[in-house]
Amino acid sequence: MKVSIIGATGYAGSELISILYKHPEVEIIHITSESHTGKKISEIYPHFTNIFEKELESLNDIEKIGAESDFVFVALPHGHAMDVGKKLENLPVKIIDLGADYRFRDTSIYEEWYKVPHTHKNAPRVYGLAEIYREEIKAAKIIGNAGCFTTASILALAPLAKHRLIDTSSIIIDAKSGVSGAGRSPKLGNHFPELYDNFKAYNVAHHRHTPEIEQAFKDLSGEDVIINFTPHLIPMSRGILSTCYANLKEDISAGTIDAAFQKMYGNEKFIRLLGRNAYPETKFVRGSNYCDIAWHIDERTRRVIVLSAIDNLVKGAAGQAVQNFNIAAGFDESTALDRLPFYP
Amino acid sequence: MKVSIIGATGYAGSELISILYKHPEVEIIHITSESHTGKKISEIYPHFTNIFEKELESLNDIEKIGAESDFVFVALPHGHAMDVGKKLENLPVKIIDLGADYRFRDTSIYEEWYKVPHTHKNAPRVYGLAEIYREEIKAAKIIGNAGCFTTASILALAPLAKHRLIDTSSIIIDAKSGVSGAGRSPKLGNHFPELYDNFKAYNVAHHRHTPEIEQAFKDLSGEDVIINFTPHLIPMSRGILSTCYANLKEDISAGTIDAAFQKMYGNEKFIRLLGRNAYPETKFVRGSNYCDIAWHIDERTRRVIVLSAIDNLVKGAAGQAVQNFNIAAGFDESTALDRLPFYP
Amino acid sequence: MKVSIIGATGYAGSELISILYKHPEVEIIHITSESHTGKKISEIYPHFTNIFEKELESLNDIEKIGAESDFVFVALPHGHAMDVGKKLENLPVKIIDLGADYRFRDTSIYEEWYKVPHTHKNAPRVYGLAEIYREEIKAAKIIGNAGCFTTASILALAPLAKHRLIDTSSIIIDAKSGVSGAGRSPKLGNHFPELYDNFKAYNVAHHRHTPEIEQAFKDLSGEDVIINFTPHLIPMSRGILSTCYANLKEDISAGTIDAAFQKMYGNEKFIRLLGRNAYPETKFVRGSNYCDIAWHIDERTRRVIVLSAIDNLVKGAAGQAVQNFNIAAGFDESTALDRLPFYP
Amino acid sequence: MKVSIIGATGYAGSELISILYKHPEVEIIHITSESHTGKKISEIYPHFTNIFEKELESLNDIEKIGAESDFVFVALPHGHAMDVGKKLENLPVKIIDLGADYRFRDTSIYEEWYKVPHTHKNAPRVYGLAEIYREEIKAAKIIGNAGCFTTASILALAPLAKHRLIDTSSIIIDAKSGVSGAGRSPKLGNHFPELYDNFKAYNVAHHRHTPEIEQAFKDLSGEDVIINFTPHLIPMSRGILSTCYANLKEDISAGTIDAAFQKMYGNEKFIRLLGRNAYPETKFVRGSNYCDIAWHIDERTRRVIVLSAIDNLVKGAAGQAVQNFNIAAGFDESTALDRLPFYP
Repeated sequence: MKVSIIGATGYAGSELISILYKHPEVEIIHITSESHTGKKISEIYPHFTNIFEKELESLNDIEKIGAESDFVFVALPHGHAMDVGKKLENLPVKIIDLGADYRFRDTSIYEEWYKVPHTHKNAPRVYGLAEIYREEIKAAKIIGNAGCFTTASILALAPLAKHRLIDTSSIIIDAKSGVSGAGRSPKLGNHFPELYDNFKAYNVAHHRHTPEIEQAFKDLSGEDVIINFTPHLIPMSRGILSTCYANLKEDISAGTIDAAFQKMYGNEKFIRLLGRNAYPETKFVRGSNYCDIAWHIDERTRRVIVLSAIDNLVKGAAGQAVQNFNIAAGFDESTALDRLPFYP
Repeated sequence: MKVSIIGATGYAGSELISILYKHPEVEIIHITSESHTGKKISEIYPHFTNIFEKELESLNDIEKIGAESDFVFVALPHGHAMDVGKKLENLPVKIIDLGADYRFRDTSIYEEWYKVPHTHKNAPRVYGLAEIYREEIKAAKIIGNAGCFTTASILALAPLAKHRLIDTSSIIIDAKSGVSGAGRSPKLGNHFPELYDNFKAYNVAHHRHTPEIEQAFKDLSGEDVIINFTPHLIPMSRGILSTCYANLKEDISAGTIDAAFQKMYGNEKFIRLLGRNAYPETKFVRGSNYCDIAWHIDERTRRVIVLSAIDNLVKGAAGQAVQNFNIAAGFDESTALDRLPFYP
Repeated sequence: MKVSIIGATGYAGSELISILYKHPEVEIIHITSESHTGKKISEIYPHFTNIFEKELESLNDIEKIGAESDFVFVALPHGHAMDVGKKLENLPVKIIDLGADYRFRDTSIYEEWYKVPHTHKNAPRVYGLAEIYREEIKAAKIIGNAGCFTTASILALAPLAKHRLIDTSSIIIDAKSGVSGAGRSPKLGNHFPELYDNFKAYNVAHHRHTPEIEQAFKDLSGEDVIINFTPHLIPMSRGILSTCYANLKEDISAGTIDAAFQKMYGNEKFIRLLGRNAYPETKFVRGSNYCDIAWHIDERTRRVIVLSAIDNLVKGAAGQAVQNFNIAAGFDESTALDRLPFYP
Repeated sequence: MKVSIIGATGYAGSELISILYKHPEVEIIHITSESHTGKKISEIYPHFTNIFEKELESLNDIEKIGAESDFVFVALPHGHAMDVGKKLENLPVKIIDLGADYRFRDTSIYEEWYKVPHTHKNAPRVYGLAEIYREEIKAAKIIGNAGCFTTASILALAPLAKHRLIDTSSIIIDAKSGVSGAGRSPKLGNHFPELYDNFKAYNVAHHRHTPEIEQAFKDLSGEDVIINFTPHLIPMSRGILSTCYANLKEDISAGTIDAAFQKMYGNEKFIRLLGRNAYPETKFVRGSNYCDIAWHIDERTRRVIVLSAIDNLVKGAAGQAVQNFNIAAGFDESTALDRLPFYP
């Protein structure tokens, strides 16, 4: 299977290379970067020295790249994948976009939150979160890979939303992420002395992953859902922990909650149910495609608190993209995704 | 003013020394440690070398220590301050306890959450959070210094609870702390390779700071309050950020919220109101006695999200203790507490 | 090939499991721990949940374990492998010891530096550093796997010692390590708040890796060698950087130095020669079995400065052990060692 | 005493404000920044909120600023202080430059290593390292404040160079610094995910602090000195540790070494002699103006290894500048420099 990576020099692009390089059914034939065209990827990421030293091309030749590829992974900032999508519309190549352009069924929501016009509204697309949309992914032309915070958050509450065990109007998601999620471009807030020994929230009530989570909960519950989502920055590199709160509906017991998780995820390879009263830690999933989930019932307040942990660059980005690719290409879903968590 | 520190070799004790050493009206006359009796404090904390090299005594002679001191600061694990309190009951010395033993008006709450019998139930005591209980602190025999998470959390929502602008049954506090709050005793979870590049929640629905926060909100609002409180561990040394959620009561406007903060804290030296839509960062208060507060209104969900940041060892422990001491001793409240935040 | 791991719950043991679990020719049949006997390894290391949940046994049955195994990896503190070695002496099983017990040809050096009697002096053993002792490793009964600092340091200067390009009496090795090298047992110096934002040297002029490095340089150069070796602790988890200084012999040119590295390592899979004037970074090798090497000539002082970087738990411990295992078992040397560096 | 800070928004400038703000004899009258002119310093550094909110000016009016100031601190990149120096040449104001422009007696050395022409060669200047040049500093018009690596390195070996106890041609200094020394401008190498869990050397054999150290050792020993100096970057914010190696001259005993340190530094307030066989740690001096020093004799190699630790922003920059200021202004040398180390 011939694949290309558009925007290979960001952290998600680099992680994609790491995973796809080991995929037994894949040959990476093109990688692109506009700022480093002509250089070898190993000059930009010296850890690839002697391993993978392919030259970076420009995406100016996207039609040629698309024509030669079975799958194209797009790891560009939002707003740029639509161009790629339109240019490859009539080619047999399939597209997996790691950005937000193809995540929304209702593109007006995208336009409202991302402040850019959507230029490919009728694109044939599915939302790329395999544990929920697996069937749709199989036949999709374009897969809008789920975001990092959203993956952790949706997976945490999906069984409860689906089985209507919680009051969806009460959902509050307090999420924390390592800084690799903010990309590789240096800026003051992510400058080492500034971020080190520091912790803060950002984009309170306005983070763009909010409507993406709401869309999934609506799909699952059948209800319009509006939530609070608050992201925070952890002084570390990789990992997301989502702490999710919701009011239990009347008479819902702990056992019912347990059963809902078991029913939905009992056979999911990449979801590890740690169980009730357990504690996921981001380091236990670091480097792997796992999402670890645990839950707690607070009988005093009648709330359920669900904790979920992922590696934002793997299950939150590149790993999920390859999981979607495996589904769409007809491979075993875990091919090349059997990396163990990297500890300590 | 002669002061002694009981339990001087924990992080709170060491921070107390740092602050009191520079207090122009204070002489530290006794410091104790049961595990290091006879050693100099600078052997245990070499950063004190050439500065403060006092010998550590045992608290076996607590009556003598109490008789010679005007104030005794107790920085022992919970359950041990009650002994000190009883033994010094009939001496003129005043006691500032940094632990939990004297924080609860209703000692049955203490017994329920801390799982130890309270042996000094009729102790004359006040809760040591100056911005709320300043008047009571002035004349107190025993001051039960507020806890670290509780200080950040209570101060964040106090104006809204007091002015009844929020539905107190909807309060959720998602708090995050650096690991110095867990003390200086090595254990696996705080071993460097384990905690590094890791993030996790702990004690969900069961953390002992919960009833302490509820007690203060009841005092402020006049209502019984039950909350969700979730602590998390940040891979860093110092700092707490509390992210506090509550449903706004009907018709409460952003301006009303702003005014409530301004009214309650406008003249507070150690509270810096960063204002609506701002973002406290733990590093901006690190090493200082400040509590930085900002708030956000989410009109979509009609919730207010309040963010507060403190240094857990200063405003969350030793600094607050000295602030209480200054009040009780009749000094300017900020004496010796004018350390600037330590940046970067 | 049936293998067992004696002492599986330290960091080196856990890393061995991670590597051997993915080895296509290996079945792990026994893992031991004296402090956690009867528990599953995934209770001790939850990142193995759902992946590898084998029960930990005691090494009391070492003869049975040895009889059932083709290879036994020993990851015990020094002084304990000799017992294992003697008990398995007459069984066909081969032993790879990750500790120091079998590293010294002259056991009196071991006794002098490690302060314990050597009880298995006549053991048939070789020093386990494949790039230098490959041939001897093939047929060895017992392999004394090279230490972490020593691997980085020996590999850095080996070509220069071997070709006698430097004055071996001038060698100074200033080495720095992440703290995972100190093991998983919590202690004050490695307690997060203590080590965080801190840097220090330790064991100056007395570190036990010194004579191990000297033994290798003597083998290579044919001269008795005495060096300075200074270890430091970096506030991070994994990685060693060795900065190695030596006086160039008269008339030795930069080109001669370049050629020596190329000649010795040009075909070594796990050594990446970054070249003259380059800079290895520990993160570029993290998680992999690579040793990255670069060198600088200072014409002002006529010294060569060689920089080498490894992951202390991989090329410095478990990876190297598996590399030695592959050689001894007749597999391709890089089997199961093709993990890419883990970045960022 | 009226002082101004030229270049107040770098880390050294911000640290100068922190120290001078608390100096009882100082009024800060001007602070400048070309990139943030017109803003309040507390907008650039929010930790100063409510404490010090002075407006940043441009240095276009440097003559006016100089005329109104008794002292001007210059914290600009090298090459820019010479302009300031020339423009203030005929005013009574004294200048303390934290950069390199005025550090060299022989300006051709500056030009060779810094690759810019020196335009103020005849400036009346002294090297600003109080423990060695105290007398000269008292009357200086311009003080070229010693650099961060150089301060740690010179102080470590000064007694041995001065008393000719070591072979100065054998000196090797292996130094390690936290990243705040590289300034506040974001760049890839100091981007959090890149530097985190990473360690590397840089500028081997070419770092600009080399000739500055050599100049001081020549002053002390009376000999021309050429050294090896190798800087490394530690994944932390503040702190420098220098590990300094030198061959002992024949017959020099440990006692002689001890005595040399005691003689030179026994009365120095800011040097703490931890003694022979001790270990400085950067955290023990963090936030303070101390330089902690310890030394080890390796009888096997007849080398002395001296370890020194400073906070690069205090004793390595702003603290040292204020120490020099106190000397030049006739104040007690430690005024405003009595901050305790900040621990943990």
